[in-house]
Amino acid sequence: MRFFSDNAAPVHPKVMEAIAAANRVDTAYDGDDWSQRLDGAFSDLFGKQVRAFWVTTGTAANCLALAALCPPYRGILCHRDAHIEVDEAGAPGFFTGGAKLVLLDGVGAKISGDAAKTACDLIRKDVHQVQPAALSITNATEYGLVYSASEVAALGEFANQRGLAFHLDGARIANAVAGTGESLADLTWRAGIDAMSFGFVKNGGMNAEALILFRTELADEIAVRRKRAGHLLSKGRFLAAQILAMLENDLWLDNARAANAAAQALANAASQRLVHPVEANEVFVRVSAEEAQRLRAQGFDFYDWGPGEIRFVTSWDSEDESVNRLAAALAAL
Amino acid sequence: MRFFSDNAAPVHPKVMEAIAAANRVDTAYDGDDWSQRLDGAFSDLFGKQVRAFWVTTGTAANCLALAALCPPYRGILCHRDAHIEVDEAGAPGFFTGGAKLVLLDGVGAKISGDAAKTACDLIRKDVHQVQPAALSITNATEYGLVYSASEVAALGEFANQRGLAFHLDGARIANAVAGTGESLADLTWRAGIDAMSFGFVKNGGMNAEALILFRTELADEIAVRRKRAGHLLSKGRFLAAQILAMLENDLWLDNARAANAAAQALANAASQRLVHPVEANEVFVRVSAEEAQRLRAQGFDFYDWGPGEIRFVTSWDSEDESVNRLAAALAAL
Amino acid sequence: MRFFSDNAAPVHPKVMEAIAAANRVDTAYDGDDWSQRLDGAFSDLFGKQVRAFWVTTGTAANCLALAALCPPYRGILCHRDAHIEVDEAGAPGFFTGGAKLVLLDGVGAKISGDAAKTACDLIRKDVHQVQPAALSITNATEYGLVYSASEVAALGEFANQRGLAFHLDGARIANAVAGTGESLADLTWRAGIDAMSFGFVKNGGMNAEALILFRTELADEIAVRRKRAGHLLSKGRFLAAQILAMLENDLWLDNARAANAAAQALANAASQRLVHPVEANEVFVRVSAEEAQRLRAQGFDFYDWGPGEIRFVTSWDSEDESVNRLAAALAAL
Amino acid sequence: MRFFSDNAAPVHPKVMEAIAAANRVDTAYDGDDWSQRLDGAFSDLFGKQVRAFWVTTGTAANCLALAALCPPYRGILCHRDAHIEVDEAGAPGFFTGGAKLVLLDGVGAKISGDAAKTACDLIRKDVHQVQPAALSITNATEYGLVYSASEVAALGEFANQRGLAFHLDGARIANAVAGTGESLADLTWRAGIDAMSFGFVKNGGMNAEALILFRTELADEIAVRRKRAGHLLSKGRFLAAQILAMLENDLWLDNARAANAAAQALANAASQRLVHPVEANEVFVRVSAEEAQRLRAQGFDFYDWGPGEIRFVTSWDSEDESVNRLAAALAAL
Repeated sequence: MRFFSDNAAPVHPKVMEAIAAANRVDTAYDGDDWSQRLDGAFSDLFGKQVRAFWVTTGTAANCLALAALCPPYRGILCHRDAHIEVDEAGAPGFFTGGAKLVLLDGVGAKISGDAAKTACDLIRKDVHQVQPAALSITNATEYGLVYSASEVAALGEFANQRGLAFHLDGARIANAVAGTGESLADLTWRAGIDAMSFGFVKNGGMNAEALILFRTELADEIAVRRKRAGHLLSKGRFLAAQILAMLENDLWLDNARAANAAAQALANAASQRLVHPVEANEVFVRVSAEEAQRLRAQGFDFYDWGPGEIRFVTSWDSEDESVNRLAAALAAL
Repeated sequence: MRFFSDNAAPVHPKVMEAIAAANRVDTAYDGDDWSQRLDGAFSDLFGKQVRAFWVTTGTAANCLALAALCPPYRGILCHRDAHIEVDEAGAPGFFTGGAKLVLLDGVGAKISGDAAKTACDLIRKDVHQVQPAALSITNATEYGLVYSASEVAALGEFANQRGLAFHLDGARIANAVAGTGESLADLTWRAGIDAMSFGFVKNGGMNAEALILFRTELADEIAVRRKRAGHLLSKGRFLAAQILAMLENDLWLDNARAANAAAQALANAASQRLVHPVEANEVFVRVSAEEAQRLRAQGFDFYDWGPGEIRFVTSWDSEDESVNRLAAALAAL
Repeated sequence: MRFFSDNAAPVHPKVMEAIAAANRVDTAYDGDDWSQRLDGAFSDLFGKQVRAFWVTTGTAANCLALAALCPPYRGILCHRDAHIEVDEAGAPGFFTGGAKLVLLDGVGAKISGDAAKTACDLIRKDVHQVQPAALSITNATEYGLVYSASEVAALGEFANQRGLAFHLDGARIANAVAGTGESLADLTWRAGIDAMSFGFVKNGGMNAEALILFRTELADEIAVRRKRAGHLLSKGRFLAAQILAMLENDLWLDNARAANAAAQALANAASQRLVHPVEANEVFVRVSAEEAQRLRAQGFDFYDWGPGEIRFVTSWDSEDESVNRLAAALAAL
Repeated sequence: MRFFSDNAAPVHPKVMEAIAAANRVDTAYDGDDWSQRLDGAFSDLFGKQVRAFWVTTGTAANCLALAALCPPYRGILCHRDAHIEVDEAGAPGFFTGGAKLVLLDGVGAKISGDAAKTACDLIRKDVHQVQPAALSITNATEYGLVYSASEVAALGEFANQRGLAFHLDGARIANAVAGTGESLADLTWRAGIDAMSFGFVKNGGMNAEALILFRTELADEIAVRRKRAGHLLSKGRFLAAQILAMLENDLWLDNARAANAAAQALANAASQRLVHPVEANEVFVRVSAEEAQRLRAQGFDFYDWGPGEIRFVTSWDSEDESVNRLAAALAAL
């Protein structure tokens, strides 16, 4: 039973159908009917005029945005456990041309306003030290916590005061919306976000993520950077169609709610052993090596996070039976 | 009737089937069953041990390879009409960190050995001038000509003498194999090619191209560079499955033969007006503005290449009826 | 007798004196008395408020400026014989992060307005082709020709129409001023130049060049880029002092006039053999291999430019006797 | 009385003399007599065949070396207080094309073997995490401590085991030699160092530092990278002459001994207030704001390092009288 990664999940049937339906002749690159509808669809979703670009990975979506928000000779504030720092092979350095990630602390991979302020204040305002140009957060975080709209807004206010652009890694923004019950708009542009990645692949998509610009004047630059980085696919309609299918009737949100609910069931069963509060679709549990082995012997697949910690990730297709069996196994430890 | 671009064509049904069949749970990134079979499948195809990587665009395949073959402070010899020079938004500069494209002449976008030799000889061997590190060719070329195996081998011999790595942009390598009747091995590694892109998207695929390394010691570097450039998709199995479907029973070659045959039919009809010999699936025709308009009025879709020139591109799905009608229209001009 | 390169010349005595006089304790980097006077000194010289930065090479001065004027994903129009293209080891690619040099033709390394217009018009306005962001000229050119103020202004007007920044490689701007008899202001900012290098090393300096910004809002970025590129020297006062000595009593212009006059003497003697008009301090002469050898046998040191061409460069310290002897030898060929 | 920075000190008279003596005609760039003697002079000094390059800043020397030792997609282990991390405006990111600095802890800016081992062991060996390619230390450190030869050798052994190149920031290597009483060879190549910067500017030079390669096969690459970064000066003889003057009769070592001795005198006077042991030419002292002000009122110039800490830096020209007066003032606090 798979609780290893939401990346390993299958693609949602409606997405598969949309891909099949896109298999007819159309203009190449992003001139096709589907791609041309993205700006409108996301503008409706966010309640604000935005520009939207399909890409195939969160790494591309995040790093293209960061390259437009931060020049090569400045820095990006992020949590030291942020995906862009830890798990993207130095992609921000590649896309920005060498900008520096300035690492912040905070519980559960959430950046506290104090940590951001302290880090900024420690930087001398001279040419010898790298001056920050952007602040990047991940919501839901790499540890499955969420920022509330007011928390994001507080960081947005700070970014604004310091002249920092504000970026959101939204690989699991759907889970954050589901987890907080707050609106997409409140969690993003109303809180000061300038650009974000909007993740679909972990949430039922195949290979289409979106890069959303609230600062629409960056669109021309992003379009060129996407091409230059080899991310302008010649049959882009198959990406756009996936995304449109995810947006239709809020499939993205239904999927996230399903994943979050499964995670809550596990959290309830393992409440005494949780490393972090469970607010999205990730569950970090303290176990002994022997306990971990016992769980594996029962057919559960998961990730060894570190000494004495394991990680379960639920997804849109987590089956009740599997979840219930795992919950029972965790409760029985 | 579409003769605009092979990028606009639909995806072959067998590729669509393979994608659908890959929609089950498997490991993320490239650890899945399909991805793990790529090295073997291409090694069989080439008759030599190779390493193969899926990516989503030819730009990525070519530029990742070039970055591994040429350091930032050296140059890449290529034709001045090469796709990497003309149509990739400066991607080689981005991926290599600023390597220089040294532009060569040659009829029909084919590099002549003399042009390569002359260009190299003009470069002073000092630190002031950029020294070349690689030679890149496109086969079939951007104008639909092919290099024969012996022509590639002659350039490979030259590259070897000068200590240059040898790269092949194989966006239409299938059409070159179909057009020359020579073997993949003879057109590539036996002629000295070190690394190449192998195009599938223009030939019936959806969004999977392959980067092939004949110098397999570069594989670790390429794997990291692919991730760092945002080209390691989390559900890579959907790319690998496409490629395996294209290789099965030589679908790639059948598709290319179909496209080439359609182009030959057009070439025969317009033999007095051809700008270039037709050796693959592109047909460049001299027409007046009035003639071009007349063709469009008959429902033919094509590209205005330049003053007095239009381009037709055939593809795996070009229908006999459309081809015949266009041939007749061309003959009637 | 040295006619090889103005880089080989000694340093002017007044510059040596200024260096010696700067050898006292002062603040590090560019906070010292001398460095702090540069902005004012150049603003007086140009008759306009400018920002001025010392660096140690023309390569650094030019490429730092270009990096501020052109983003990594766009292009710089320049002559195909421009120093930044031919003799700086790809430095523009390094400093800009991969911007492309778009090469223009023109007699004597001068860019014609038509060539610039044609090149721009050939670029499709889409994301596939690199769009230019800047135009760069060299005055005096690499072949010793000068642009008049009206010629620069015409290019500046073109740049302005196309939204291009306008850069001047002024390695020999002093010789251009001396050669045209026109003012620095007319040859630079009044003609639309945004940023330039101002060369001193070829003209009597030791190792200090200046980067001048007419768009002063770029100063903060340049200051950081200079540091980041390792060009912020810790004892900058020794560079600033050189430059101030060169500006005092127009030593820069006297030196250039002396060099130009020496070149004119050679030009008059070889008037039937000149490859290019002699408008600054370089003299290209057509000679046979045997004639070149004969000149060398008489003790003249010069550069073999190409088959049948040699280059003489005069400098601030060219001695009348040497010049007269060379003139006689050329006349006697 | 200046105890602010060794960068603010004047240039040693013998260096000034050498510069004056170099003011004659010679070949441009690094073909001159002085530059050509550098390899031999340093090979003699180190007791091993090396390649030596002049540059004008430690930033350039360090970052050119790091670019040759670490590809863009890998990492460099260094102390979190290392100059390359803290005070070079992100230059390593620029020169390497985006390599990542992996930050280590350790008392007094010294890297402990355990910290290096722990950091390496925490990095998963996959393509998602940046793999280190080099280890960089500073000797003497940014806090004025020195690594002994055996400490360097232990780190060299570790680097060797892990396949890491080993770089030394030798901005104050002279002070380390003076402080340890150990040989240059033992502190560098015998301990496994592959490449280093050798600082002269803080130690009596004007604007010449050296980049030393013990892995001489990197020399061609460094030569090109130096040019490409705008660090190949056209009148390089003035840099080479400085360095040769510093090497003659071990002036570099005499100067460092003088600076270290002055620092020891201060350390003895403030022994109860030292933040770090004083092993080179930097003295960090705990003082109250009121005490700092009192020292300033007595005419002492120094740097406020942080709350309750001030830094004194001695240099080759620190005068006994000033040092004695400061020592007395410190003792009297």
